[in-house]
Amino acid sequence: MSQLTHTYPNDRVTLREVGLRDGLQMVKQWPKTSEKRSWLEAEYRAGVRHFEIGSFLPAARFPQFADLPDLIETVADLDNAHSAALALNERGAENALQTKVNEIVCVVSATEEHSQANMRRSREDAVALIGTVAAMQRREAPEKVINAGLSMAFGCSIAGTVEQSEVLKLAEACLDAGADVIGIADTVGYAGPKQVGGMCAAMERLCGDRPFAIHLHDTRGMGIANAAAALDNGARIIDASLGGLGGCPFAPGATGNVVFEDIVFLCETMGFATGIDIDALKNVRHIVENAMPEEPFFGDITKVGAPNNMTWRA
Amino acid sequence: MSQLTHTYPNDRVTLREVGLRDGLQMVKQWPKTSEKRSWLEAEYRAGVRHFEIGSFLPAARFPQFADLPDLIETVADLDNAHSAALALNERGAENALQTKVNEIVCVVSATEEHSQANMRRSREDAVALIGTVAAMQRREAPEKVINAGLSMAFGCSIAGTVEQSEVLKLAEACLDAGADVIGIADTVGYAGPKQVGGMCAAMERLCGDRPFAIHLHDTRGMGIANAAAALDNGARIIDASLGGLGGCPFAPGATGNVVFEDIVFLCETMGFATGIDIDALKNVRHIVENAMPEEPFFGDITKVGAPNNMTWRA
Repeated sequence: MSQLTHTYPNDRVTLREVGLRDGLQMVKQWPKTSEKRSWLEAEYRAGVRHFEIGSFLPAARFPQFADLPDLIETVADLDNAHSAALALNERGAENALQTKVNEIVCVVSATEEHSQANMRRSREDAVALIGTVAAMQRREAPEKVINAGLSMAFGCSIAGTVEQSEVLKLAEACLDAGADVIGIADTVGYAGPKQVGGMCAAMERLCGDRPFAIHLHDTRGMGIANAAAALDNGARIIDASLGGLGGCPFAPGATGNVVFEDIVFLCETMGFATGIDIDALKNVRHIVENAMPEEPFFGDITKVGAPNNMTWRA
Repeated sequence: MSQLTHTYPNDRVTLREVGLRDGLQMVKQWPKTSEKRSWLEAEYRAGVRHFEIGSFLPAARFPQFADLPDLIETVADLDNAHSAALALNERGAENALQTKVNEIVCVVSATEEHSQANMRRSREDAVALIGTVAAMQRREAPEKVINAGLSMAFGCSIAGTVEQSEVLKLAEACLDAGADVIGIADTVGYAGPKQVGGMCAAMERLCGDRPFAIHLHDTRGMGIANAAAALDNGARIIDASLGGLGGCPFAPGATGNVVFEDIVFLCETMGFATGIDIDALKNVRHIVENAMPEEPFFGDITKVGAPNNMTWRA
């Protein structure tokens, strides 16, 4: 079995906890390293295996990610757990390759306007960077996974409408450049389930056996419906964050990522076994709520509990 | 065109605002009649045409519905607006038939256990009541619509699992007894989108040209996903309440009905024109929030606004 199939088996759904990265990107206060470790370890015990835990960025500007190397070690010590982190430039990728991080995530904006405004580079340059990073990875750490995340893939706060064909073209360019996994992100929560379903069906045709991930924000309340449509149309990797932590700089006032706990419940109702214990996630929430008392936590299932007729945990 | 086709055209989606009934059923404080009127009229101006506005129940026990006759008059004065109210026994139905209410809603529990616990009668007796009410209606007010709402249709807080076949059998019995419309309710928010989609597909086969409605609670965060699945599988009438007002006595601590504003956005993203202006709903929220300052209001779309690429309101 290849490393990729081991990391993302295509016969089951993988849920990626991105709260330690996307959930901390915008916050003014963040958990101490020991609290992040408690979060990771408790969520691991609840059954979660995939964690996106930070960005390789200058600690002076992004102090919330200064302990990324420590967290990579924490995940590496957990049997069968998988860590991912963002690398937004060559320097970041070089740093990532020196660590035990399992997956390096590069980001490409789906629109030229957003790419220039957010990253001060063209989409072409962003795709070329993936090529550079993939070449370094093949040389230095062939066991690591390269993930290309396409932001603003369902609509852009600057450019407006984003055509599906444009996203597919970029996805293909990223695969050609050496990406192992493509992530499709509704960065500003523009999508509805019909659009997400259509995109995932097209991505499945494009990717064949290669995995693709879907990253949803619940900005306009469509997160769970979009995830259901993604699952219905072949997506098998879904990003989410505990309590829906995380906002988006391009969607002021917005609720954040789709809620991890609710996604677990959704999957189970749809017949996708997650191996994750919803009751145990309740305790993880307590840990993170205590560590970030000023952050709002979203999500319903851990408040109310699973229905009394659910037997899926047995 | 028959009255039924006029009320519920099958070539478009109808959204029923149930906040004035289901949203007020459990609350300790409720809007004054003048505030309810402002709510109704503002929501009508936003494009909403279907309102469930109360229950024909003894005013001494349910003072929040004491002004139901006034509200029926309010809706009757609005061009092309449609009012509905619950009648839980023969006396309630007799009262309803004396008014201009357009639709009388009777309720049947999907499980015998809940029927006995909640209504102190068998499901058979509840279906028989529909026959009695329908006979009265045909005699006294043939233009009124009879709606049979099946509660606990996706799982029951007492009996647990509810088989789809059992719900279909009850739905058929209600149609045979004279109901014009069947409502299928996830009273305690047990359902996921797969179950809702399967139920709606089966209901469409059962009902043929006759309309059926879906009533969803967002107790476990699945409300919008369930609505999307319902629309994908033939449902064309969806209940919702402004801000998600309303809880459920059988799901303590739960969030309420699926949020009306978010359902409007969902429909529009799926290509179902609602004729409802989301920005105008924001103002309706202000009216109701002021009238019920202690109630939590849910929903995201009116906070954030529609995406900048949405042209559907034009």
